[in-house]
Amino acid sequence: MRKIITIGREFGSGGREVGKRVAEILQIPYYDNEIVTELAERTQLAVEYVNQFSEGGSKSIYYFPITIGRSFHEPMYQNQMQNLSLHLEQSKLLKELAENTDCVIVGRCANYVLSDFNPLKIFIYAEMESKIKRCRENAPEHEHMSDKELRRHILDIDKSRAHYYKFVTGRSWDEKANYDLMINTTNYPIKAVAKIITELYRTYEGNVAD
Amino acid sequence: MRKIITIGREFGSGGREVGKRVAEILQIPYYDNEIVTELAERTQLAVEYVNQFSEGGSKSIYYFPITIGRSFHEPMYQNQMQNLSLHLEQSKLLKELAENTDCVIVGRCANYVLSDFNPLKIFIYAEMESKIKRCRENAPEHEHMSDKELRRHILDIDKSRAHYYKFVTGRSWDEKANYDLMINTTNYPIKAVAKIITELYRTYEGNVAD
Repeated sequence: MRKIITIGREFGSGGREVGKRVAEILQIPYYDNEIVTELAERTQLAVEYVNQFSEGGSKSIYYFPITIGRSFHEPMYQNQMQNLSLHLEQSKLLKELAENTDCVIVGRCANYVLSDFNPLKIFIYAEMESKIKRCRENAPEHEHMSDKELRRHILDIDKSRAHYYKFVTGRSWDEKANYDLMINTTNYPIKAVAKIITELYRTYEGNVAD
Repeated sequence: MRKIITIGREFGSGGREVGKRVAEILQIPYYDNEIVTELAERTQLAVEYVNQFSEGGSKSIYYFPITIGRSFHEPMYQNQMQNLSLHLEQSKLLKELAENTDCVIVGRCANYVLSDFNPLKIFIYAEMESKIKRCRENAPEHEHMSDKELRRHILDIDKSRAHYYKFVTGRSWDEKANYDLMINTTNYPIKAVAKIITELYRTYEGNVAD
């Protein structure tokens, strides 16, 4: 059985950097945008559309329609079917990746989708001020936003992720029962956080010294 | 400034063992029952009473009374005042300990009471089946209980801890924002969990290697 690390994360908490660093240390693949590219190719859909779907980027995208009194041929219904098939394709892809090699997968409800693989399930979060600071430092596309706008942007993205997670799993996104480890990056450097994840990962290989 | 480790924990999750092991590795004091003993001595109250109070062992102990139309001399009111004074004395004691030396403190809302010390705030939890198993292995006093009774017992104790935490802090006991690290011990040995806590603790001393 492969050992997979799944990383759920609040926007701006540094989850992606943590994932990349963990993958580097362990010398295993890191999957994030690669999933979007592959999914777009398989489904012949635009990368932008898949990207938006992939983690619930659009608020309405993963709500099922109430079809009573409506035709199955209505555009809204067809859109929902497309999203459902995209979700199934993504789950299939995640399982293929997990079967191939140990790896780090960020987002995409991977902790739930890959539960048969008994992954190491991580959730990365941080205080709002810390997330705003990180966004300012790392993402120049937010430069035009005021702090108030950026705060709203962060909350909106996390709300979409939480909705998507609920849609796929029926559970709450940031509920501790869904994870092995939840780490607040507010007061700790990314490299320290990455180090303790690799430490825990290695316990599966019996490498923990007394 | 001292570096304190506070450990909140679900009953049966192994939080106490984690705390003891962390203290051993770091060679710093571990405080749990010692707090009860010292508090009983200072307040001249029975150890059993202090123990019950110390983490909300009794469900009604930390609710303030509605005094409208009642005399301040009624026994219930006096009891509540005693509890409030006990809480204040406990907070004072925790601060004294924290000022003296780096240490590990289990329970007692220490993450909140000692927030000025910027402690490393840990929460230990586990799945119910894992907690029942641990109780069966480590606590012979539960031998007479059926699994159903033990499950109820575990839930009751955690409910009391959650109430006490809410009373003292106004916050939810197991909300991630109150912690730096939340660890699920279901699938990981205590020694691995203790190791990653010490790892994170040491980042404060700049001991993290690349």
